[in-house]
Amino acid sequence: VARLLGASVVGDPATLLTGLSSLAEAGPGDISFLANPRYEALARSTRAAAILVAAPLTGVAPVQIVVANPDFAFATLVETFGPKSARLPVGIHPTAVIGEGVVIGEGAAIGPCVVIGDGVRIGARCTLHAHVTVGVESVLGADCVLFPGVGVRERCRLGDRVIVHNGAVIGSDGFGYATVQGVHRKIPQVGVVEIGDDVEIGANTTIDRARFGRTVIGKGTKIDNLVQIAHNVEIGEHAIIVAQVGIAGSSKIGAYVAIGGQAGIAGHLEIGPMARVSAQAGVTKSIPARSTVNGTPAQEIKTYQRNEVAVRRMQRSQAEIKDLLARVAELERRLGGAP
Amino acid sequence: VARLLGASVVGDPATLLTGLSSLAEAGPGDISFLANPRYEALARSTRAAAILVAAPLTGVAPVQIVVANPDFAFATLVETFGPKSARLPVGIHPTAVIGEGVVIGEGAAIGPCVVIGDGVRIGARCTLHAHVTVGVESVLGADCVLFPGVGVRERCRLGDRVIVHNGAVIGSDGFGYATVQGVHRKIPQVGVVEIGDDVEIGANTTIDRARFGRTVIGKGTKIDNLVQIAHNVEIGEHAIIVAQVGIAGSSKIGAYVAIGGQAGIAGHLEIGPMARVSAQAGVTKSIPARSTVNGTPAQEIKTYQRNEVAVRRMQRSQAEIKDLLARVAELERRLGGAP
Amino acid sequence: VARLLGASVVGDPATLLTGLSSLAEAGPGDISFLANPRYEALARSTRAAAILVAAPLTGVAPVQIVVANPDFAFATLVETFGPKSARLPVGIHPTAVIGEGVVIGEGAAIGPCVVIGDGVRIGARCTLHAHVTVGVESVLGADCVLFPGVGVRERCRLGDRVIVHNGAVIGSDGFGYATVQGVHRKIPQVGVVEIGDDVEIGANTTIDRARFGRTVIGKGTKIDNLVQIAHNVEIGEHAIIVAQVGIAGSSKIGAYVAIGGQAGIAGHLEIGPMARVSAQAGVTKSIPARSTVNGTPAQEIKTYQRNEVAVRRMQRSQAEIKDLLARVAELERRLGGAP
Repeated sequence: VARLLGASVVGDPATLLTGLSSLAEAGPGDISFLANPRYEALARSTRAAAILVAAPLTGVAPVQIVVANPDFAFATLVETFGPKSARLPVGIHPTAVIGEGVVIGEGAAIGPCVVIGDGVRIGARCTLHAHVTVGVESVLGADCVLFPGVGVRERCRLGDRVIVHNGAVIGSDGFGYATVQGVHRKIPQVGVVEIGDDVEIGANTTIDRARFGRTVIGKGTKIDNLVQIAHNVEIGEHAIIVAQVGIAGSSKIGAYVAIGGQAGIAGHLEIGPMARVSAQAGVTKSIPARSTVNGTPAQEIKTYQRNEVAVRRMQRSQAEIKDLLARVAELERRLGGAP
Repeated sequence: VARLLGASVVGDPATLLTGLSSLAEAGPGDISFLANPRYEALARSTRAAAILVAAPLTGVAPVQIVVANPDFAFATLVETFGPKSARLPVGIHPTAVIGEGVVIGEGAAIGPCVVIGDGVRIGARCTLHAHVTVGVESVLGADCVLFPGVGVRERCRLGDRVIVHNGAVIGSDGFGYATVQGVHRKIPQVGVVEIGDDVEIGANTTIDRARFGRTVIGKGTKIDNLVQIAHNVEIGEHAIIVAQVGIAGSSKIGAYVAIGGQAGIAGHLEIGPMARVSAQAGVTKSIPARSTVNGTPAQEIKTYQRNEVAVRRMQRSQAEIKDLLARVAELERRLGGAP
Repeated sequence: VARLLGASVVGDPATLLTGLSSLAEAGPGDISFLANPRYEALARSTRAAAILVAAPLTGVAPVQIVVANPDFAFATLVETFGPKSARLPVGIHPTAVIGEGVVIGEGAAIGPCVVIGDGVRIGARCTLHAHVTVGVESVLGADCVLFPGVGVRERCRLGDRVIVHNGAVIGSDGFGYATVQGVHRKIPQVGVVEIGDDVEIGANTTIDRARFGRTVIGKGTKIDNLVQIAHNVEIGEHAIIVAQVGIAGSSKIGAYVAIGGQAGIAGHLEIGPMARVSAQAGVTKSIPARSTVNGTPAQEIKTYQRNEVAVRRMQRSQAEIKDLLARVAELERRLGGAP
């Protein structure tokens, strides 16, 4: 293990390791890891035979394997030795329905009841699990994995190594109407969704196609479950969008932006690169690069925190005002009469 | 184009138009539109050959076509000249599973792996895309479009021209339990969902069936993605419900109500016609017609804004209190002794 | 009816009952119920022939049937006499795709296009509706009902009598990355989801599998639609999680906890047994047993309410401060000069 990770060992390097587990759940023979110093007590009580650490601890029973990034090193071990996710067999399941002019790359696996529209291109080694649908003329790069029930609508484009979890929808119509004489008339949504390489999209997330032009998800961006991305949104590279976030139409999210769970971004805004939006925040104005915002309406984090302190202090302030009113009235009574 | 739209033209009416695009993305030969005055600068810099405008601008290069509603006029052009969404071929795909006593109207298209329960009626010219399920005895009007994976449970009713996007669920059980000796016992949800004409429902939205009676979506109402509509909710006509809104059980939403993204409406409330609920608001009381509310708990917009101003002013108020406390103490010291 | 419910009757016990309905919608011959005293006026105006009540009312026309819990008693009537949900026929639909080594219990019904992976075990009398997918080596107890399009990923375990509504996803990958040189590298999610007996899961809800170990839903817990449960969350027994709630990674939710709609729970927290989290609250710290919290960041309900009062009072406070500043200035002027 130490050789695989290029690590140094504190303790007996010949210890036999038989399993992978967390500190709390580890049994004898398991290897585990300490990524977060707050769990150091667990490292002292764990029954694990070995642990990955960033710096050796004193007074710890298990063998310690010292690596730069215990979290990532453990992930490497899990990938090498852990249980494998089920792979579909290469080829097209007999129950799949494939349109005309479809091109399927070498080594791809097309599962049961998958439905692929005319003119679709599927890259090499893609896995389309059961009940995936891909609309006409959409294009998937190489090595994509689409889990059961994912729906890609017509003319969308996915890069290489894109992972989409169960039930996510890519390319549904944007929410756009023109109200004419009291009736909301549907505005056709004829654009597409374009998804970069190495993007991951969570279960039941929805990404609407552009009114025209493109809704864009930049390469390396990771999107959690139940997220809503409206039409014409553009997300830069390597952003992190946590579960249940909603991003309204035409907003632009910069590279490396991180948006906490359940936060909302109003339409037509720009969130600068590396900005951070706290969970449940409601962003109503554009945000400069590298800033952190919180609250609804979202404010720069220092302003938000000062307001929080002021609100918590407010009852005391109101008691002080009551006291002042009595004391000033008393002073006025004592000074008496007209000036 | 001008003739189709009944519009007047500022510039050369013989300009050749070859594409449809937004102001920012337009190239030579494209026609675009200016709907929102904030984008007027884009109208001055666009490379479009022609633009639809509500009133002619001066000093603008492209040919201007003057129409009452540029947004809607552009939508008409897109519908007439733009790319068409893929239509399924009329008829029943051989992989569809059709129950007993099912009636399918003329010109309907039933896609691959669609599953239709006994006694269902599907109106003329409906399109049911792949993997749609329709439960026993449900009824769909004419010209409905159900995208892949939509689930309609038993005994629900959809009007004419209803559009339902991928993965939306109509008629799932309401969330109702009676807690008996510490155990939550399921209360049967035997009502239905009834959806009016011209309703559109977003991807992965969920609409629960009534406990008994009906959950109702009024005609012309538009619902975005990932919205939750609980049992026995009644939504009036022509309402607009933006993404990730949640409406709790038995609440009544009036006609033309607009609810912003991620807002929540508690149960058993009435939201009066034409009321507006801001994004992320949390409505805990009924709201009169035509009012606008914001915040959690939601307040009338003027009250909400005054409170916002007061909170922002609070740090200064607390500094003023500190100053007053010092000055009053000084006055008391100078006046000295007993009254 | 009275005999079935073990109830006493006020009025003619021979009244013929022909339907079940709510107070507002009932017609002649219907039986209805009064569970919430706020609807007592409806009990006086209803056209129902009989009503279930907790205590007899005076001056009410319908026959009254007095029971301890009218809500639950009515549910019993609905289950006994009401419309039955469609049952699939026992057996395996010819379009289902069943893997190798699958064990299906007696009396189970496997619907159209269901896809079951290798080594799965399905308990007796389970119903898997159309398009359900169950990943390799997952295990379902007896009497489970999975509605159309539910996706259970590999190696998950469901207890007995678990109900899962359309489109819910169990066992999708947790949202975990290690950022190495500016690239978010996926951390394998090799754990599972374990769901206890009598759990119900709403439509399009997503429950992520553990990074390793287990995401746990305790027996008797009820989860509404569009809820997000992240990796390694542990929910105790008999909890109630309302629609659109999000629970971040590794948080522990105690038994009988109730979480209101759209609330969010940050990661790595403990919510004590029987605690209550109000709708839209944002919980950022652990919460002791039996407490009630509200707001973002969530506070104990009394603190929250005092702050709400203080905010509402703040404009008046600021007027008082303005008044005090003028009066103190006047006092200072009158006292004049140096001390």
